[in-house]
Amino acid sequence: MATRMPNPVTSGKLVDLAAELLPRMRARGPKVHCITNTVAQPITANVLLAAGAIPSLTTTEAEIGAFVRSADAVLANLGTLDPERHQAIEIAIHHAAKTKVPWLLDPVFVDRSELRLDYARELLARKPAAVRLNAAEFKALSGAPPNAEAVRVFARSRGTIVALTGEVDLVSDGKRLATIRNGDALMGKVTAMGCAESALTTAALVASEDAFAAVVAALTVFGIAGELAAAVSKGPGTFAFAIIDALYAMTPDDVRARAKVADG
Amino acid sequence: MATRMPNPVTSGKLVDLAAELLPRMRARGPKVHCITNTVAQPITANVLLAAGAIPSLTTTEAEIGAFVRSADAVLANLGTLDPERHQAIEIAIHHAAKTKVPWLLDPVFVDRSELRLDYARELLARKPAAVRLNAAEFKALSGAPPNAEAVRVFARSRGTIVALTGEVDLVSDGKRLATIRNGDALMGKVTAMGCAESALTTAALVASEDAFAAVVAALTVFGIAGELAAAVSKGPGTFAFAIIDALYAMTPDDVRARAKVADG
Amino acid sequence: MATRMPNPVTSGKLVDLAAELLPRMRARGPKVHCITNTVAQPITANVLLAAGAIPSLTTTEAEIGAFVRSADAVLANLGTLDPERHQAIEIAIHHAAKTKVPWLLDPVFVDRSELRLDYARELLARKPAAVRLNAAEFKALSGAPPNAEAVRVFARSRGTIVALTGEVDLVSDGKRLATIRNGDALMGKVTAMGCAESALTTAALVASEDAFAAVVAALTVFGIAGELAAAVSKGPGTFAFAIIDALYAMTPDDVRARAKVADG
Repeated sequence: MATRMPNPVTSGKLVDLAAELLPRMRARGPKVHCITNTVAQPITANVLLAAGAIPSLTTTEAEIGAFVRSADAVLANLGTLDPERHQAIEIAIHHAAKTKVPWLLDPVFVDRSELRLDYARELLARKPAAVRLNAAEFKALSGAPPNAEAVRVFARSRGTIVALTGEVDLVSDGKRLATIRNGDALMGKVTAMGCAESALTTAALVASEDAFAAVVAALTVFGIAGELAAAVSKGPGTFAFAIIDALYAMTPDDVRARAKVADG
Repeated sequence: MATRMPNPVTSGKLVDLAAELLPRMRARGPKVHCITNTVAQPITANVLLAAGAIPSLTTTEAEIGAFVRSADAVLANLGTLDPERHQAIEIAIHHAAKTKVPWLLDPVFVDRSELRLDYARELLARKPAAVRLNAAEFKALSGAPPNAEAVRVFARSRGTIVALTGEVDLVSDGKRLATIRNGDALMGKVTAMGCAESALTTAALVASEDAFAAVVAALTVFGIAGELAAAVSKGPGTFAFAIIDALYAMTPDDVRARAKVADG
Repeated sequence: MATRMPNPVTSGKLVDLAAELLPRMRARGPKVHCITNTVAQPITANVLLAAGAIPSLTTTEAEIGAFVRSADAVLANLGTLDPERHQAIEIAIHHAAKTKVPWLLDPVFVDRSELRLDYARELLARKPAAVRLNAAEFKALSGAPPNAEAVRVFARSRGTIVALTGEVDLVSDGKRLATIRNGDALMGKVTAMGCAESALTTAALVASEDAFAAVVAALTVFGIAGELAAAVSKGPGTFAFAIIDALYAMTPDDVRARAKVADG
């Protein structure tokens, strides 16, 4: 790898920040409170632990305040949106706003349920630091096609960072735009992979002053973990755990050698 | 493998259909809404994704209708039968009946709880397309020993397809009967393996006009996945993920070479 | 290994009992009802199955009595302590007390929530057979530093067995004290590892007349499983499943060769 040519589509500064993400996270150990769906809980917690963050997952009304008060960031994932989770999100966002703790919205399956769509719109108006979603969810929420310009417009109009993930990831804060071409198709064959990516992105918000760069860094690192995992996997079963191993072992050099991040 | 002798206990037509199950499922991508217990959710979703189906898992009263309306099949699993899941099953079955969407009943642990047993009996009267259960559950529900004749009688009297799984699987629609001798003992050492098999069987109901053949195909494919997984596993931990890899990679030739399906 | 020297810090009798734990458990097949948090459910069930026990996990008010009545031991884990789980624990402990079924308390994250701390204190007064917890939880609950003398004092004052796990495990029944130096750092990088260890310890209470020795045996076996798993793992992802394989395959000789158990 010593003589590897620099990647022409790579944005140097964003890649530097991506390379530093995991060392910073391991040093800081951010506490991330995740209100997420039950199917996503194990992989979400394990991805955060592998990256050096400290997950907590309770959704109980009586306790959520205590957990959020001692958290550094909050994830609001709309999967399995039962009344308890709905209430938990309300309390968590209220506390997060009061204490300036960043929170991220993952509007899971808003394309399948009008009720979730309405609630996701309401949450968007309450200024999450970032939103991570897939193409179908983006279309349902923005009414626009899932392309770079639409992502930028949506981010600007909502005053948040939008991270649209898929074969190519698009991130915008309304002004800047980054394109990330890391990842592997097996990521779409494992349940809750997007939810886990959202959790890692939430943790990244703590690790950098520049929230846009932090989101780009998280998606880059997660995509590279997917590539490293695919190289040692026989299918989606082993892949689901190889990606956790890859996150745990990833070095800044791995990130620099593999990042495919472009500005604009 | 080229000169492998044909398996004498194999029923040719059922095996052909089993061999075609995964290609059909991958082409069709059926949406399967699974009301299932929390411990089973991750493996259930991952088995469906590996087979080419699209799982959804919400159990929230306000949302379940929207998910079932866009689903191709529904799984009603009685594990962790809390009031929310009970309500979700009621709504889902109601929608499924209206829209002719097939649904499958998995009466988990009815041998351990009188309440579940009563509810399973009530659900059986509402004509699921199929029921998948183990020997203890069959005995509790039918009052009969877990043998071929009792399975046939029970299927006929209830007007459904009964799939009794164990070391040998028995499937009957009340007239036809099939015996499947695929699988591995490690399947009994991993939690929710039966629940995941029920989910795959539910998805199979979408892939064929002949529901009996579809159920036989699903159990055959799942049993073969278990055999392929056991061959590369060191124990139940790695087996749980090797079986997902095996489903993902399985070809029609794998099925033809390994299927042990007998008529009658 | 034939000429391996005896470990000087090893207590022979406790190690003999630890070596016999898994054979006894596999022969007996204890039914363990686990009220535990959703994130811990899959690994908890799989650890118990790998060790030869039979897990059940329902938390539904209407059913919990039936499950506990046919259980041999009960785990009360305070993670995701929603109203349903709170109620389930109340019913389970009530039944367990009436039928002399041993139960174990795992006061997850009492250092993060005053509410849980209060409830854990209340439960402690109701005489669990054992309590398993980490250093932060021990400090919150006992008000004392996490050392051997404090563990002994706390166990004596509460009339229970206290198992404080960490880099070194300490177990006391108020009189006897044992120190266990088995385990691997990767155990701290996988979610719900402590919860799963509590479940195995709960099952162990059924396998021996001497509850103190049973708890020591469970922690020793689980620590050794961690060592065996770490030797074949590339990171916390594969480790989580290698530890289940290790429990499944472990022999009395593995335990005798590796146990680091000291009296006092």
